[in-house]
This record gives sequence, C-alpha cells and structure tokens, in this order.
Amino acid sequence: MLAVVMHGAKDLRVEQREASAVLPGEVRVRVAVGGICGSDLSYYRKGGVADFKIREPLTLGHEVAGEIMEIAAPTAGLTVGRRVAINPSRPCLVCPFCRTGRENLCVDMKFLGSAARNPHVQGAFSESVVVRADQCIPIPDGLPFTVAACGEPLAVALHAVRRAGEVMGRRVLVTGAGPIGLLCLAAAIRAGAAHVTVTDLTPEPLAIATRMGADEAIVVSGEVDHLAQAASTHAGFDVAFEATGAPASLAALPLLMRKGGRIVQVGMFPPGELPLGMNVLITREIDLIGSFRFDQEFAMAIELLAEGKIDVTPILSGLYPITSALDAFEIALDRRRSVKVQLEIT
Amino acid sequence: MLAVVMHGAKDLRVEQREASAVLPGEVRVRVAVGGICGSDLSYYRKGGVADFKIREPLTLGHEVAGEIMEIAAPTAGLTVGRRVAINPSRPCLVCPFCRTGRENLCVDMKFLGSAARNPHVQGAFSESVVVRADQCIPIPDGLPFTVAACGEPLAVALHAVRRAGEVMGRRVLVTGAGPIGLLCLAAAIRAGAAHVTVTDLTPEPLAIATRMGADEAIVVSGEVDHLAQAASTHAGFDVAFEATGAPASLAALPLLMRKGGRIVQVGMFPPGELPLGMNVLITREIDLIGSFRFDQEFAMAIELLAEGKIDVTPILSGLYPITSALDAFEIALDRRRSVKVQLEIT
Amino acid sequence: MLAVVMHGAKDLRVEQREASAVLPGEVRVRVAVGGICGSDLSYYRKGGVADFKIREPLTLGHEVAGEIMEIAAPTAGLTVGRRVAINPSRPCLVCPFCRTGRENLCVDMKFLGSAARNPHVQGAFSESVVVRADQCIPIPDGLPFTVAACGEPLAVALHAVRRAGEVMGRRVLVTGAGPIGLLCLAAAIRAGAAHVTVTDLTPEPLAIATRMGADEAIVVSGEVDHLAQAASTHAGFDVAFEATGAPASLAALPLLMRKGGRIVQVGMFPPGELPLGMNVLITREIDLIGSFRFDQEFAMAIELLAEGKIDVTPILSGLYPITSALDAFEIALDRRRSVKVQLEIT
Amino acid sequence: MLAVVMHGAKDLRVEQREASAVLPGEVRVRVAVGGICGSDLSYYRKGGVADFKIREPLTLGHEVAGEIMEIAAPTAGLTVGRRVAINPSRPCLVCPFCRTGRENLCVDMKFLGSAARNPHVQGAFSESVVVRADQCIPIPDGLPFTVAACGEPLAVALHAVRRAGEVMGRRVLVTGAGPIGLLCLAAAIRAGAAHVTVTDLTPEPLAIATRMGADEAIVVSGEVDHLAQAASTHAGFDVAFEATGAPASLAALPLLMRKGGRIVQVGMFPPGELPLGMNVLITREIDLIGSFRFDQEFAMAIELLAEGKIDVTPILSGLYPITSALDAFEIALDRRRSVKVQLEIT
Repeated sequence: MLAVVMHGAKDLRVEQREASAVLPGEVRVRVAVGGICGSDLSYYRKGGVADFKIREPLTLGHEVAGEIMEIAAPTAGLTVGRRVAINPSRPCLVCPFCRTGRENLCVDMKFLGSAARNPHVQGAFSESVVVRADQCIPIPDGLPFTVAACGEPLAVALHAVRRAGEVMGRRVLVTGAGPIGLLCLAAAIRAGAAHVTVTDLTPEPLAIATRMGADEAIVVSGEVDHLAQAASTHAGFDVAFEATGAPASLAALPLLMRKGGRIVQVGMFPPGELPLGMNVLITREIDLIGSFRFDQEFAMAIELLAEGKIDVTPILSGLYPITSALDAFEIALDRRRSVKVQLEIT
Repeated sequence: MLAVVMHGAKDLRVEQREASAVLPGEVRVRVAVGGICGSDLSYYRKGGVADFKIREPLTLGHEVAGEIMEIAAPTAGLTVGRRVAINPSRPCLVCPFCRTGRENLCVDMKFLGSAARNPHVQGAFSESVVVRADQCIPIPDGLPFTVAACGEPLAVALHAVRRAGEVMGRRVLVTGAGPIGLLCLAAAIRAGAAHVTVTDLTPEPLAIATRMGADEAIVVSGEVDHLAQAASTHAGFDVAFEATGAPASLAALPLLMRKGGRIVQVGMFPPGELPLGMNVLITREIDLIGSFRFDQEFAMAIELLAEGKIDVTPILSGLYPITSALDAFEIALDRRRSVKVQLEIT
Repeated sequence: MLAVVMHGAKDLRVEQREASAVLPGEVRVRVAVGGICGSDLSYYRKGGVADFKIREPLTLGHEVAGEIMEIAAPTAGLTVGRRVAINPSRPCLVCPFCRTGRENLCVDMKFLGSAARNPHVQGAFSESVVVRADQCIPIPDGLPFTVAACGEPLAVALHAVRRAGEVMGRRVLVTGAGPIGLLCLAAAIRAGAAHVTVTDLTPEPLAIATRMGADEAIVVSGEVDHLAQAASTHAGFDVAFEATGAPASLAALPLLMRKGGRIVQVGMFPPGELPLGMNVLITREIDLIGSFRFDQEFAMAIELLAEGKIDVTPILSGLYPITSALDAFEIALDRRRSVKVQLEIT
Repeated sequence: MLAVVMHGAKDLRVEQREASAVLPGEVRVRVAVGGICGSDLSYYRKGGVADFKIREPLTLGHEVAGEIMEIAAPTAGLTVGRRVAINPSRPCLVCPFCRTGRENLCVDMKFLGSAARNPHVQGAFSESVVVRADQCIPIPDGLPFTVAACGEPLAVALHAVRRAGEVMGRRVLVTGAGPIGLLCLAAAIRAGAAHVTVTDLTPEPLAIATRMGADEAIVVSGEVDHLAQAASTHAGFDVAFEATGAPASLAALPLLMRKGGRIVQVGMFPPGELPLGMNVLITREIDLIGSFRFDQEFAMAIELLAEGKIDVTPILSGLYPITSALDAFEIALDRRRSVKVQLEIT
C-alpha cells in the first residue's frame, strides 16, 4: 500500500509499505483523508519533534478518517463499510493514568505516526491502517471526511480548554492562529468565553480567526504594544492558550495576564530550555499549565462536528492527492497561504 | 522609637524613627518579637528583593507579635494590653481580588516592611507599629511571642499547601529546608501528605526536617542522584513545593514529578528570567503554580499555633536584642547555624 | 411616586409611596421597566415566598432597568441620565462571604422587594428607587430596557450554571420552562452543554425552549415515561437544573441522573420538608447543590445581553403599564400564555 | 470450608460451603480476620440492607485480611504465604466509571458479601475466599490482621473525606460515632480539620471519639440544644459527615451548617424517601453529597495503617471465633458495648 514516509529531515517519500495483519480486537480502516499536523511538519523540516528524533523510517499521519475494511471479530457498533474518525491514541487501559481519566498520560501509549517510542509507531498517511476497535468513532453519512479528520486537532483544543478551568465569562487570549490556535478559539467560544483575542505574526490567519468569531485579532510582529494595550483594556487576560510554541511568545505572557490567571501551554517548543520570568508568575499567582493531546475529548470533538456545533471549515486550506504529498507539505509550511492542509489518500 | 532600618545593601542601622499617629480604625502595637525573613536578608545583602529595590530608608520586619498600646476607637475583641500577632497585609478590601478571597493579590496592598511600592511601607522591627485593627489577631496568654511571630511564615506555607490542591495521600517534595521549606513540610503533614521528602544543600537544616516529621531528607549538593532515585521510588512526586528560589532547583523539578503533578513555586528568584524545560511540563501535564504570601491562612496559622496543632519550635534558632540586630542578620545568613532568627524588640 | 405594593395575599395595590432620600454613595434611578418574577407572583398569590411572609406593605420588584436621576456624590462611570440595569443585591461588603466571592450568601444582604428581613426591603416597582451606586451597571444606548431588565433572572441562571461545575460537553436536563428554566437553558448552551433537554407540564413554554435551542423538549404531565426514556438514551443526565420548585419534580430526578451527576436546585419550594430518596443519591454519588441568586454573574449577564451573546427576547411575553399591574400579575400567572411579563413603569 | 451464611433475617448459620475454583488472574486467600460491618448487621437484623434484600443464602463479610494460599498464575508482588488485606471491590475495569477514577460507580461491580446483584456475590466470612489478584494488597509482617481488616471501613471514611472537598482548616461535624463515624473523625483529623465535633445518642462511643482526637463530643439524645449551640459557636459547620443513616439526623443538619457548607452523606438509610428541608439548602447554598464505598482510597488506607499514621485500635471491641459468629453479631448490635467486632476465622 502507498504511504507517506519520512526517512529523515526533508526526506519525505511516497512509497509502498506492507500492510499489517489485523489482530483480535483490531480493525483495518481504509484511510480517506488525513490532515497534516504541525508535528508532521516538524518531522518534515527537522527530522524530529520537540525532544524526539526519527531513528527509522516513519509513516506520518494521525488526523485521519476513513471506512472500515476488515474486522477481526464482531465489535459493538462497527461493521465493514462504516465511516469512522480514527482516534490516534491507543492507551494501555490498565496503568494508573488510564484508570483515572488521564489516558493522554498513559505510561505505555501508542500514538499513530510518532517517534516518541522505539520502534516508532507507524502512522496513518497510508492507504489503510490497522487500529484497535475502540479507536474508531462512527461518523454520520453527511459528515465529510475532511471535517471528520479535524476531530483530532479539535480534541487537542477541547482538552486545552478543559485544562483551563472555568472559561465561561472570561477574557481569553490565544497566541498563534495556526490550526490549534484557531480551534482553541472555537473551543473557547463554545465554552462561553466572554471575549477572545487572537494574535499571530501575519494577518492572513487572523482574518480566519475573525471569521470564526474572535472578538479581537492582533498582528504582533514588531510592536507588542497592541497586545499589551489589549491586555490592559481587560486588566489582563484571565486565560491564555499559548499555541505558537515560540519561546518569546510564552515569555511575554506573564505580564499580559490578570492576577490569578491561567496560561495553558498547548504548543510544543524546540528542544532545550527556554527563559521565563518566574517572579511575575509568583507575585501574580499565575498558573502555568501543560496541556498534552486529549483524553475523552476526541469523542466530544466528533460529536460537535457531527452536530454542526463547531464549524471547522474556515481552517480547511486544501486537499491534495497522496501522490502530491511533498507539494502539500511545502504548501502547509507557508502560514500565509495555509492553515490546515489535508491529503486525499484513497 | 528604636527601629531596624535599611539604608542600602549591607547598610543596616538600628536608629531612632518617629512613631506614626494612630488614625481611626487603627491601633498602635508594642512590638515584642520579630522574626527575620528571607526577604529581610535579601534587603540586607542586596538592597532589594526579587524585582524591588530600596529607594529610601526602610524599616524592615513583617513577622511580629506584641501587645496593643493604643486604640483609636473601640474595636471588637481588641483592648489595650491584648497580646496579638500582627498580619502584615493591609489589603484595600474593595478591589475585585479582595472581594473574591484573594486578598494577597490586592491591587493596592500595603505590606509591612516592603519596597514593592513607593514610598515604601515601613516595617515592624521598631518599638511600636501602627496597623489597621483587623491586622491584629489576639493570641492566648500561654503562647510565646516567639511562636506567635511564626504565624506569618506559617501562613505562607499553609497558602502554598492550599495552592497545591489535594495533598492528602500524596507524595510530596519540599526543596529547601529554610524556614519556609520547613513550614511547608509541617503544613503538608498537617494536610495529610502520605510521604514528604525534603532536600537541602547542607545536612544541618535537614536534621530539623527529620525532627519535624519528614519521611526522607536528602542532601542534594553535588550528586542529584539520590533525589532522582527517591523520585523514581515514588514514580515521581505528586506535589513539589519549591522553596529555595534557586533557578537550578526549579529547573530540575519537572523530571522528578509524576505525570499530572503540581509544582508550587514559593521561593522568589533573583531578578531576571530563568531557564525551564517546558516540553516536559507539557507532555507530563505538570502544573506550575505561583504562590504568593497568604490570604485567610494567617488566622488559620495563629489558630494552629495557639492550639499546639503545629509545633514550630524546632525552627527557632535564637532570639537577639534589637540592639544586636546586625549580629542577628549575619547569624541568620549562615544556614548551617540558623533557621529562624528573631529579634527581641521590647 | 406610584408603586406596586402588596398588602397581603391577593391584595396588590398601585398606590402613592414616598420617595427615599439619596444618601452618600447612593443614586436615585428612574425605573423604566420591571419584570415580574416568580417570587413576586408568590407574594401575590400567597402573601409570601418560601419561608418568608409579608408582615408590612411591601413594594415588589427587583428585575429593573432605568435611568439615573440623582447622584449623591460623583461616582466613577455614573452620571445623571445614564441608562443602567439595577442589581437588586446590596451586600454588606465586609462579612466573610462578601470577602470570598460569595456575596449572595452575605449575612446582612438587603435585596430589593424582599420580605426576608424585617423591616422589609422595599422594591423597585415604583417610579424611582434609591440604590447604592455600585448596584448600577451602565448599559449601551441600543439595549432596550425590557432586555436589560432580564439581566437579573439571567444572572440567576448563570450562577446556577457555575454551581453546576463543568457543563461543556455534558448532557443537561432543565425541569421547568418558566423564565428561570428557559434562562438556565440559554446559559447551559452558552457554557457548551452537549445536549439540553427541557421539560414542562404544558407544551406552550416548551415551544419557546425549542426556539431558544433546546435539543429536546418533553411534556411531563401524566406520563413520566418520555423523560425516563430520554434519560436512558443518555445513560442518565450529567447535570440537572431543577427550576420548578415542585417537590415531585425533584423527587423524580435522582433516578434520571447518571452516576456521579449533579442536580442544581434553583427553584424555591413551598414551606416545609419534602420527601427525597437519599439512597439513590448515595449509591450513585449524586451531588445535590443549592443555588441561590447570584454574585458576580449580574455584570456577566448584562455584558452578554449588551453584546447580544444571549438572546432573551423569546421569553418576553408582554409589557403592561404600571397602572395595569393587577392585570399583568394575573396574566403572568397563566403559564400557557406568559413567560416573562413586564411592567412599563415610567 | 466453614462460612457465616445468612439465610434470612435473624437466620445466621455457621455452616460448610464449597470452595470456588481459582481461575486465571485469581488467587485463593486464607481468611484470618473479618470485621462485622453495619451492612452485615443490617442483613442479620432485617434480611437486607438499604434497598437490597437477601434472595438466596449469602455468605457475609467484606472487611477481611489473610494469607495467600494459591495463585492461578504468577502475579507481580504476590506469592503463596504473602499476608494481604483484601479489597472487596471487583470492578469491571472497562466501563466509563472505571476509566475515570470512579470505580466505586462501576456499572458491573462485584462486591464481596453483597445482595446488590443476583445471584448475590458471596462474601469472605469463610475459611478461604477467591478474589482477583488485584484485590490483594500486601501488608507488612508487623501489621496485625485485626488492624489490616479495618482498611476497608477506613477506605470508606477516606473516600468521604475526599468527597468533602477542602477539609484543612475547616470546622467539621461527624454525626454518629459508629465505626464509620469514628473513622471519618480519624480521616478528617488526618486531612487537617481545624476542629471536629462528634455526636452520638450514647456516651460510650463518644468516649472513644475523644480518645481518637475529637475536639468536642456531644450526646444528642433528647436535647439537640448542645449541638445547635456548638454549631452557633462556629457560625455553623463547614463540613458534616452524616454517618448515622437516621433520617432525623440528616433532617437536622441543614440548619447546623455554615452557608456554603457541605454535607457528605455516608450512612445508608432505611428504604423509602425521607423528609428534607430543601429551602435552607438553597438559600445557604449547601452541597448535599452522596459518598459510596471507595476507589483508590483502599490502598491509601492500608498504607496509613501499615505506617501507623492512623491508629484504629481504639475502635476494636473484640475478636470472636467464627464458631461464635452468632454471639459476635449480637454483641456488635449493642452500641454501648461495641464499636467494631471482628471474627477470627482461621
């Protein structure tokens, strides 16, 4: 089967890979659409993401939807031909984290298309993928695969919003209008935020933020003044979602927050340490909270998309055939042109 | 009246200062005992603390207990001669923080002996001090002033424990066995921690930690290995109280924490930014929480001391007459000899 | 000035009352519109509400908006002629509840138009009313008084939603489609509820619920079966807002809830005890939570209305001149015809 | 093997029962000691507990400790001869509650010695019992079986304390000084309660409460006045643990609570509904919280007992041979003589 495989930085190949067998409890899914994630782009540009490096060929892809081809054994709700979104998380289900509602912290997680463990867990930018049955969430007929494939990044955003504590009635800042930032915006609106400000270095994605309901959109290139001004209008932000992964963005946040506020760090940073002004965090009693992937929010995301309660179509920038994956990755790197680029795989 | 006044780094003078008038709602307290805090030592050593510098002569002192000398108008529970602990916080009572149980974040706080605002708020290392009536918490006759004067740092520790969320049944790490670290230990035990590990660079204060009930005491100088080993025994700590204010101590923490754990930052750092490995905070979903001073925990601290439910006497290292303040400060700087040094003021 | 005064059950008189003086810190407001609340109707029908009885003539009314006529002393943001919504709560600001963000529990609350204390606090169904300056929340020019006067019941609903804990992604039940129930529906949607079911004894208000976004509307008269069926579809409701104040409605709830669910009791009951099946509450670990009035949610309500983020116009059933107050009250009693009936006062 | 079997109300027989086979994942434990629980007494007196009735012969017993006799397959940490406390809960591990840290709400729980499901789950008052390996918690050699067998009721109390939210620094009331009430007392002290008041109808168990550290012990028979007086001293209790299961006890609580307080209902009630004054719950915004069995608190309980951090010996009233089970049950019914009666089984 055809797959999008990274062999190292900038060495992306669309090539034949052997399909895995379907073991008991598993299903094979024909992959229809797959979205290119920021981590896919990092693998592409740098041969790794955060602290993890590619050590063997790695099929990318973890934002996918498709149709069930084969089932090892009858499973409640799943039949051959069923359209599904795939949850890329395969937690162990037995560790203390899995048993207390924090599967994203599972000590033995297998996450599609990730170099976090060795051997790597191969991803889903391939004509078919084998997953555990409980990773498949049925979707209604009317829901396009392109939208269903956004369930995964939306789950990341919903999880970040839950990590933020109370959002209803709060002044929210989202730094970075990439896919995750824009979905944090949508999730924060859904959770009842009183006012959401979104920032980015370029105006193009901010136009989309405005279309998606942002109350304020600020270009931060050069002059941070506008943002500081916005912060002071609200006597500081109650909640910030840091979705750039840029050290300078996080470093600027403490002074923009209201006392007692909460920063949720969603974006991953380049490897290494970064500088932070901790005294402001202390004297303002600001919470700095890590948010990593998602847990039950995947099902919640699919339900919201299925019922049309969150509209992700403004972030969809284009669908490219798998054979043009290289072009698609290059296009996805250009944040002035693209938010979420997807591959049409089968 | 005699007072301990900083005129700049290392320039501490015991000199005459004029007493203030007692305005409506205020009382004058004869100050019996005052404890030297880490921030007093920082003013002494560096002429400032965290981001604040001394710009005019500053009477130090905010851990004090004494006896009421004069009352502007009759006030419930207070009479001349009443023994009291003094809460050094004088919040405005009307800002949004004061009205929602976060007086420590008051936008117009006047805190005894602090250069955080200009003109500075003069402190209580002086023969008498004028405070608002609600800053005085009566203490029973049997409670020594030396113990009552520990109410303030104990309140800091109790506040940190409340910022930690659930402590009962959790594995706790306290970095730094200075007064605040040791009181965090006592407060964590009081809150039902399953196991408390305390670290320090030198063994002397750790001996006191053990006496106060630490389950484990680790000298971290040179080899961090022991601590890492201790962390791995517990699969990481659930809660850490960072009480050193040393950048390296905080930087080491994320890898010692259990996933989903919480770091409460109590110690203030030197001015400037410090390096932090954020990706571990994200992938482990660790909360990094600032804790600043205290709110209602001051009354709670005095009650615990009055009822003997927390014993602070192990941290009391010596009581020196106000006229020997300079000696007392020098002794307090030597962490091998001293934990909490106090001044006998009147 | 003309006022709507209760002299006892069914003895409502529109009569002249003397206006109060404006003391320092207070303002006089010309009352434009006032909404009739369920408690006003209870005073009218029974001469009392919950456990409180009318003991002296009581001007009713606490859902009002108008225009400032007179100010005792210059106050930030308020000027004569300013259009405002009036927060009927006048908490003491100094008790422990006022100082910890729970002003609704103030031990010395003065709430407009209430017999809860003696002498009663006179209400605002009168040509003018004198309130403390901080009870006035300015509203924009474009916001009709009829809408602004809904700020108070909306604040009740928003407070109930905050008492419910996490609402985002949850299955919600609202029992009772009166004004409070319908506003709980709106507030739950705003807070991101995944699905809201609303019940009532009659279909008319449920039609409004549907218009306001309810996912499901169930008439419960006679056959409880539909509701039980709805509950079992969702494996029980996560959150219920009991907004009828009917003992039978609360009694039926525990069996409709998901394990670990939360019932927020918003409606007040007739005096006396009511029967409850506690064992189900225990074995399902259901939280039964009282919700009383509101705290900071009043300002939040006005902001939501001002920005059009919650639309209350579907509940507005009619505006009657103050001189027809008696008719208006009778019409308001007929739940088939009316949800929120308002008086045009000046 | 010999077992204590209920055949109906008052029909308790010590008789031979066949031992079960040990299936994969299971172990057989020689039962050394078993404590008689209030629910065992209810089965004995009334042939049922709460809403569940005995429909077939039921071996009682779920507070037990013993020694492993047989293991189906090697299991981490367990070997033949290992001394263990047995967790009577056998949750399914796969339902939504098991996966979110609320195993006590498992939809397919098998709890030792319970008539809650049919066929009943047989209990552990028998010479041996077969349980899943993960139900066995190893205990140190020095820990007496009598103490280890208190792990189960202590877990109930620890769970109740966690359901209470913040306990540190709070005024606590425990109604009922039976085993659960007394262990709630111990757990509340452990969690840092500022002051604990315990009530009972008779003075004997209150003497034990005082020995275990209660700050106040009040006999409530006849005159409720003392309790009301105690409540008013504290301006109401912040937290109450209702551990009697007597409707009148719960009915009296709302008026004894501080506004914003929380009642945790631990005791099960007789079948049927009970009268409650809901309006006080609403206007004081009191939380009424069900607490059912325990989740991870079982391991926490065993650890506390193993480390001597909670001393349960004051509640141990006597150890009787299994052949005298009938006498032991009768003695356990007399609350003036007994708190926790245990059986020496092997």
